[in-house]
Amino acid sequence: MKKVVTFGEIMMRLSPPLNLRLTQANNLDVNYGGGDANVAAALAQLGQPAAHAGCFPDNDLGRAASQHFQRLGVDMQHCVFRGERLGLYFLEVGASLRGSKIVYDRADSAFANLDPTWFNWDEILKDAQWLHWTGITPAISASAAQATRDAIQAARRLGITVSADVNYRRNLWQYGQKAQDVMPELVAGCDVVVCTEGDAEDLFGIRPEEGREDRFVSMCEQLQQRFPQIKQVIATRRETQSASHERIRGLLYDQGAYHETTPYDIVPVVDRIGGGDSFISGFIYGWLHFAQDPARALGFATAASALKHTIVGDINLVTAAEVEHIVQGNVTGRLLR
Amino acid sequence: MKKVVTFGEIMMRLSPPLNLRLTQANNLDVNYGGGDANVAAALAQLGQPAAHAGCFPDNDLGRAASQHFQRLGVDMQHCVFRGERLGLYFLEVGASLRGSKIVYDRADSAFANLDPTWFNWDEILKDAQWLHWTGITPAISASAAQATRDAIQAARRLGITVSADVNYRRNLWQYGQKAQDVMPELVAGCDVVVCTEGDAEDLFGIRPEEGREDRFVSMCEQLQQRFPQIKQVIATRRETQSASHERIRGLLYDQGAYHETTPYDIVPVVDRIGGGDSFISGFIYGWLHFAQDPARALGFATAASALKHTIVGDINLVTAAEVEHIVQGNVTGRLLR
Amino acid sequence: MKKVVTFGEIMMRLSPPLNLRLTQANNLDVNYGGGDANVAAALAQLGQPAAHAGCFPDNDLGRAASQHFQRLGVDMQHCVFRGERLGLYFLEVGASLRGSKIVYDRADSAFANLDPTWFNWDEILKDAQWLHWTGITPAISASAAQATRDAIQAARRLGITVSADVNYRRNLWQYGQKAQDVMPELVAGCDVVVCTEGDAEDLFGIRPEEGREDRFVSMCEQLQQRFPQIKQVIATRRETQSASHERIRGLLYDQGAYHETTPYDIVPVVDRIGGGDSFISGFIYGWLHFAQDPARALGFATAASALKHTIVGDINLVTAAEVEHIVQGNVTGRLLR
Amino acid sequence: MKKVVTFGEIMMRLSPPLNLRLTQANNLDVNYGGGDANVAAALAQLGQPAAHAGCFPDNDLGRAASQHFQRLGVDMQHCVFRGERLGLYFLEVGASLRGSKIVYDRADSAFANLDPTWFNWDEILKDAQWLHWTGITPAISASAAQATRDAIQAARRLGITVSADVNYRRNLWQYGQKAQDVMPELVAGCDVVVCTEGDAEDLFGIRPEEGREDRFVSMCEQLQQRFPQIKQVIATRRETQSASHERIRGLLYDQGAYHETTPYDIVPVVDRIGGGDSFISGFIYGWLHFAQDPARALGFATAASALKHTIVGDINLVTAAEVEHIVQGNVTGRLLR
Amino acid sequence: MKKVVTFGEIMMRLSPPLNLRLTQANNLDVNYGGGDANVAAALAQLGQPAAHAGCFPDNDLGRAASQHFQRLGVDMQHCVFRGERLGLYFLEVGASLRGSKIVYDRADSAFANLDPTWFNWDEILKDAQWLHWTGITPAISASAAQATRDAIQAARRLGITVSADVNYRRNLWQYGQKAQDVMPELVAGCDVVVCTEGDAEDLFGIRPEEGREDRFVSMCEQLQQRFPQIKQVIATRRETQSASHERIRGLLYDQGAYHETTPYDIVPVVDRIGGGDSFISGFIYGWLHFAQDPARALGFATAASALKHTIVGDINLVTAAEVEHIVQGNVTGRLLR
Amino acid sequence: MKKVVTFGEIMMRLSPPLNLRLTQANNLDVNYGGGDANVAAALAQLGQPAAHAGCFPDNDLGRAASQHFQRLGVDMQHCVFRGERLGLYFLEVGASLRGSKIVYDRADSAFANLDPTWFNWDEILKDAQWLHWTGITPAISASAAQATRDAIQAARRLGITVSADVNYRRNLWQYGQKAQDVMPELVAGCDVVVCTEGDAEDLFGIRPEEGREDRFVSMCEQLQQRFPQIKQVIATRRETQSASHERIRGLLYDQGAYHETTPYDIVPVVDRIGGGDSFISGFIYGWLHFAQDPARALGFATAASALKHTIVGDINLVTAAEVEHIVQGNVTGRLLR
Repeated sequence: MKKVVTFGEIMMRLSPPLNLRLTQANNLDVNYGGGDANVAAALAQLGQPAAHAGCFPDNDLGRAASQHFQRLGVDMQHCVFRGERLGLYFLEVGASLRGSKIVYDRADSAFANLDPTWFNWDEILKDAQWLHWTGITPAISASAAQATRDAIQAARRLGITVSADVNYRRNLWQYGQKAQDVMPELVAGCDVVVCTEGDAEDLFGIRPEEGREDRFVSMCEQLQQRFPQIKQVIATRRETQSASHERIRGLLYDQGAYHETTPYDIVPVVDRIGGGDSFISGFIYGWLHFAQDPARALGFATAASALKHTIVGDINLVTAAEVEHIVQGNVTGRLLR
Repeated sequence: MKKVVTFGEIMMRLSPPLNLRLTQANNLDVNYGGGDANVAAALAQLGQPAAHAGCFPDNDLGRAASQHFQRLGVDMQHCVFRGERLGLYFLEVGASLRGSKIVYDRADSAFANLDPTWFNWDEILKDAQWLHWTGITPAISASAAQATRDAIQAARRLGITVSADVNYRRNLWQYGQKAQDVMPELVAGCDVVVCTEGDAEDLFGIRPEEGREDRFVSMCEQLQQRFPQIKQVIATRRETQSASHERIRGLLYDQGAYHETTPYDIVPVVDRIGGGDSFISGFIYGWLHFAQDPARALGFATAASALKHTIVGDINLVTAAEVEHIVQGNVTGRLLR
Repeated sequence: MKKVVTFGEIMMRLSPPLNLRLTQANNLDVNYGGGDANVAAALAQLGQPAAHAGCFPDNDLGRAASQHFQRLGVDMQHCVFRGERLGLYFLEVGASLRGSKIVYDRADSAFANLDPTWFNWDEILKDAQWLHWTGITPAISASAAQATRDAIQAARRLGITVSADVNYRRNLWQYGQKAQDVMPELVAGCDVVVCTEGDAEDLFGIRPEEGREDRFVSMCEQLQQRFPQIKQVIATRRETQSASHERIRGLLYDQGAYHETTPYDIVPVVDRIGGGDSFISGFIYGWLHFAQDPARALGFATAASALKHTIVGDINLVTAAEVEHIVQGNVTGRLLR
Repeated sequence: MKKVVTFGEIMMRLSPPLNLRLTQANNLDVNYGGGDANVAAALAQLGQPAAHAGCFPDNDLGRAASQHFQRLGVDMQHCVFRGERLGLYFLEVGASLRGSKIVYDRADSAFANLDPTWFNWDEILKDAQWLHWTGITPAISASAAQATRDAIQAARRLGITVSADVNYRRNLWQYGQKAQDVMPELVAGCDVVVCTEGDAEDLFGIRPEEGREDRFVSMCEQLQQRFPQIKQVIATRRETQSASHERIRGLLYDQGAYHETTPYDIVPVVDRIGGGDSFISGFIYGWLHFAQDPARALGFATAASALKHTIVGDINLVTAAEVEHIVQGNVTGRLLR
Repeated sequence: MKKVVTFGEIMMRLSPPLNLRLTQANNLDVNYGGGDANVAAALAQLGQPAAHAGCFPDNDLGRAASQHFQRLGVDMQHCVFRGERLGLYFLEVGASLRGSKIVYDRADSAFANLDPTWFNWDEILKDAQWLHWTGITPAISASAAQATRDAIQAARRLGITVSADVNYRRNLWQYGQKAQDVMPELVAGCDVVVCTEGDAEDLFGIRPEEGREDRFVSMCEQLQQRFPQIKQVIATRRETQSASHERIRGLLYDQGAYHETTPYDIVPVVDRIGGGDSFISGFIYGWLHFAQDPARALGFATAASALKHTIVGDINLVTAAEVEHIVQGNVTGRLLR
Repeated sequence: MKKVVTFGEIMMRLSPPLNLRLTQANNLDVNYGGGDANVAAALAQLGQPAAHAGCFPDNDLGRAASQHFQRLGVDMQHCVFRGERLGLYFLEVGASLRGSKIVYDRADSAFANLDPTWFNWDEILKDAQWLHWTGITPAISASAAQATRDAIQAARRLGITVSADVNYRRNLWQYGQKAQDVMPELVAGCDVVVCTEGDAEDLFGIRPEEGREDRFVSMCEQLQQRFPQIKQVIATRRETQSASHERIRGLLYDQGAYHETTPYDIVPVVDRIGGGDSFISGFIYGWLHFAQDPARALGFATAASALKHTIVGDINLVTAAEVEHIVQGNVTGRLLR
């Protein structure tokens, strides 16, 4: 089976044990993750071959980050080891009415300083059928944006499906260009996008038509009109009850047709980081394995994302069978012997 | 006060800390337990003298397992140290809609290879008033089944009450005999059994009469008819909401009379392993200490089992006073200074 | 800004990790706290200068306890290092229907044996605007009661606001005097008190008037009549659902006017110790910073206390901005990046 | 085989992990030990039946302490559970030129407050062949001294061998009597004593004769003259190189004959606490199992003590075979498969 | 560069933290290793492509074991996932004169039950230049011995260098054939062997000629005479001072020429498991990268093995540059910034 | 007593537990340190009032770093909280012949980006008698160099003693100026310097006169000639045996007189980071408290530094009494009760 390729930054995540505050920490748990690499790793757990392209500093931290994904079966051979520092983030895990909190320390990382010419996309995408990227990558630096552009162009050229999680984070765009100028061209090359109403408005000035109750559908219609390459728009709808109680549904706009799942309640939430990445990886898996049955892919994606909230770390360490078990309604957490 | 004696295998339990998956584990928490020995240990915590007979490998793991119960006041003097390996199980603790999961590694253990003649039951049961066993033991090996048979016969001969948790686990029966052939004779020697409708159908072909809503009672009536020695049938009714939320009630069929408790909600579930063992140990304690008042024994058993779900490990580490505190309706977890 | 001064004993708290029982503990987590010093430490986190006066043994444990508060910015220069032992308490953290449990080991501590003349209150209170104490302190020993008396008198003399958490714990009063004889004089010197209906009855024989539904207000009216110096009476109303689910509201009787907040649900409760101390520290902060707006101070106090239940340790490690975030209704624990 | 009985206080030991200082500790490792109970526990590991009599507070800490020894096979049935507090000590483990350090917190423990009449020594010593006590016990309180006296008298009456580790600790004697007044009577009842030249001088005014090089022998001769019941005097000679490097030899004066072992070097020292207790337990074991061959008993005792320095905790967790392995010269720590 | 292929069993290693005894363990550290796979993993760290063929149970433990090596860059694509259990071993880490100790629990593992036809050696060895196996593999079961035979034959057929660590462990050979019957044929197919004088005598009846001081050389001469395919015989000479102090030298007999390194002292030994595997991986690396310069390869191998003793786990996690640093005499452990 | 003031960067130190390699780390121990602030903190432990001036990012990491020193009694009121990131370093702790290793991640820290005008040195040095800085600070950035210059000038103006650890680290000087241009002016303002022969040559081109054996003295003479303000030059002479065995002596050139201590052997080395900082803090303490007795100050400094090697973390957590204990020759690590 042809592989799915992702591109983006992988960071070290440092978090105090349990619910301790950052200022209380005498030791920190180590994980590694990135919004796109998490998708590759989750796909590999589901049984779908996946590769990741990225850039790490040429030191022990870079190697440890890369090995973390190699361990999970992600093909890391197209990663480059050059530069000085690995991006970090410190995660304080909240509880109940106290939200989790992230302190980023990712500026000037090896990935931010990559040279787009280091990546030979025709080579990287040779045996691929899908390319996935997130809106975080072009936000990091001009060169990262350029590499994203190169990857998308190569994928289009090679007839490979492209998906993106547009994921607009205002305060990431610091290098002198605006998301509003950079993103449209990139999104124009995508077949599938994860996009919320907020993202659509902030990035593309798309607002749901007034008076329409199906705001998501209205947004999707306009998005597709503007970017005709896009065929599916997906999103999760979260009704966060507390840091320990999440309720999520999956939404899909598929060339005019709208699908929505019933919600899952997750109590307690073990780890919410990567919930969106697990959703898109579930969707890609479902799309590729269920004959492009949109509702089934959406159901799979949403169940996968629900499960992710019970897994420690950024990556959804679940098998396809475990996701199907949830899809079939086994949500009471019965002991498996 | 005369002791309660249990017989069966004790295993080492290895579980990743917190909610980590087995494949994430860099270290494993060690516990020890067995469906019958857990009853002895819980009884000892409640203040009821208890002894356990079993077989351990003659190595450090066997000694550590035995010492774990010795520490809790269980008389282990009738245990035998012969053989090669201690049975193990790996427990991954789930959360919310992800269930806990057990990987067994118990084949060919020292206990499975025991020689029934190593156990002098007249000696072992000398100061005993009660013998308890579970359906797991005769499932392990022919020799374990024979030792169980010997124990029951000795108990009957000595006029000792016998109880069993029939606990049918299909995939345990691997040594060439069928549970359906072995269990009836053993259960026939029991005064008290824990049995669900599913177990009764699978093991004895007993199905609740059609049309009767009180399926449990119907099952019990037939069970008692078939095995006239049985006087009490007990069970817990679980309405599992999620891996983190359990609701349990206790059921008792006592020579024609039916009793049922109101349910307890346990949120969060700290550790569900041994929930059934704590129920039977609570019932034995209640029966012996409350003048065989069936409803009171059932109430005590159910409260004990509810408490177990908040205790780490297989064994219910609670005092009789703590169980009574719950029985009296103190279920809001007030701080005790 | 002038500082708030607290006086009282600081103890070492030793608790098994997670929900382990005390008898299961192979290692114990170390924290430090005291009902009054917790108030000083929480105020310092909120940005309000605070100092604590107390007495520690002249050994490593005393120094570690003092340093724990010094780290949080509490001025500890008026603490005395004399005597033999640091008071300890062992905390077992419950879950669901099993309550947490404390085993005290605080008798004969350095603080209990303090000499009141070691504390020069005019010096200690020089730059202070507020003195806070709790009913635990005069319960410990005659000399601790005397030092409390001295502090209150000095504060009155210097025109400093005095608050008290009357916090009656019957089994603490062991040194030959009765709370009913000692406390009235001390409470008479206070401007603000935390007092429940139970405390008022036990300590002062004050019972809400029969037939009145607003029992708290009735109690407060009588309390104020008896101790005319008291202007505000505050309390939290807890509806404990389980050891893991708390619901709290704040109550305030302010010179005839009654205020009450809507309740906060905290699920799960991470650490309930110090919930009351965080309430009073929130109230003091609110009173001093919000132009003595009683409702706003009460709202701040209650939100602060709700947040405390999500923080490990005795001390409320939250900033004023974090409390305000809750006050403004952000209680769904959204991830902050 | 008849049992060995010990009497004395068992304390909880709390120590920072690794080489952290006490003031750095955020969690503390829990162990339990006592100079006499350690002997019982080590004997039980060696295969020699042993029982301990003592007194614990009637709370979780007391139970945990008792269970710690019960787990190791020590018969704890003659222990009394009355009183308020468990004695504690905080152990900071040094390294290299920084010595380990103990902060005691044992005053006013349940053991110190025991009532001698709680112990029926004829009952306790019924199946015993040996009684062992240490000079710490009579130092704790008048009642502990009286119970020691009672035990020795009963042992003499019953023809049981009595041994003592005189172990003089000046600062323990706080209850109004002097060691010099109390100890002689107690030591007079002993057959075997552990005693150093320093102890002999401090307690009994015995000084090695001037000019004699064999100071230990000279001391022993006088000791035996003064207390004719004493037949063997033993001691370890330590040449402490650093907190991480110990060199020990065993000395024995046996009714005029002097024996001395070659030294063992222990690098690194894992845990030095209980090194002396492991020596005496080794000697008792050797004496009882090797036909009272003094040199062989001494060799066994010294090897046992050497091994203890590699074991974490107060208690020597080694089998007789492991000690013999060392005695036979296997000191290079070869891997055993 | 063509890869090195290894074949053999990988086990889970469970060890108590620090120097705790197995019976003291409340949690166990998890590692994975195997005498041959350790060589592959070490080579991958050195920069030499390596693959491993083996068999794992089709469960989480099997996957975790495989992922452990995949993480380190070992190509695991030729591993088979079939069967029930993963072999385990429990490692107690000694100190000073107390040796480390292993309790094996590896009987009846998935590897032991492998079917030799599952392995297509022509496929597995396609891009290989070297095959390495150890004497443990044919000891496990007849089918494992057959698979080893198949592998060696394929390698010979393909002109690939074959090395073996003969590593005779008497008590492993339990399946009905004797090492003395099985091993000669296998060793006959090797170019390089690790063999001690003891192994040579036990397996092949080869004894150093009487009167010759160079016993190793004498053994090698006879070995080469008997097995003409063998060109190099290597070994480490250990002078174990204690469990914490090792002294090692490397020996090489290369077609008549004898080489020996000066010794390395390792104090303290952090982890001795895998010391031999790191030696052979160092030799293979050296042989392949240093133009088959025997002395340089031996020096590299010995330095690699010395470094391994400072690394936790079975696998030598060092780079070629780090080994060269030692080879160049930098043995004083200077801080590298 | 007037305080000692230090100035410089404080970093978070992240290190794998025990001797694990960085790539093995699943959690990291947190410490904080800086070459100058370590001196302030060590002085505060010795009883000497100390303050530190520096700059932290305005986030949780900055606050935690500052609180770490505040806890130890260092006056942190002159620290500024502005900027984005806290400098980090990852420390891998070696053993035996494997050295420890540091991966720095300190570029572009809040401290590096400080504005010298934020520091009012007349205010900061108001109650000071001593200013200490290290050569690391002017290496970080031009503004840090300027702030150092300002501090020294203010100190000279106020008649305060100035000391420096010249500590030349070539790869730190990245901002466009050369150490050789910046350092002479700064060192010219110092009374006491720590300087090795290597530093003197690299920074000032000073080489010991040819043929002279007392190379250190020769270097000092020239240094003092060049910088007449310098009165004392001190250094430690390390003979590193291995990562686990250090041997150190103290050297002092005091206005023509040369002093040298006997060496201390430290086995094992627990933590070598901060060994030099503990030496200078010991010297400052000794100089200020022992009437400027140079030999005694040097002895104290060297003993302090030896002790530091047994303490975890960057900071020397020892009291003056503990250092004196070593000075008096108590180096065998006897247990202190």
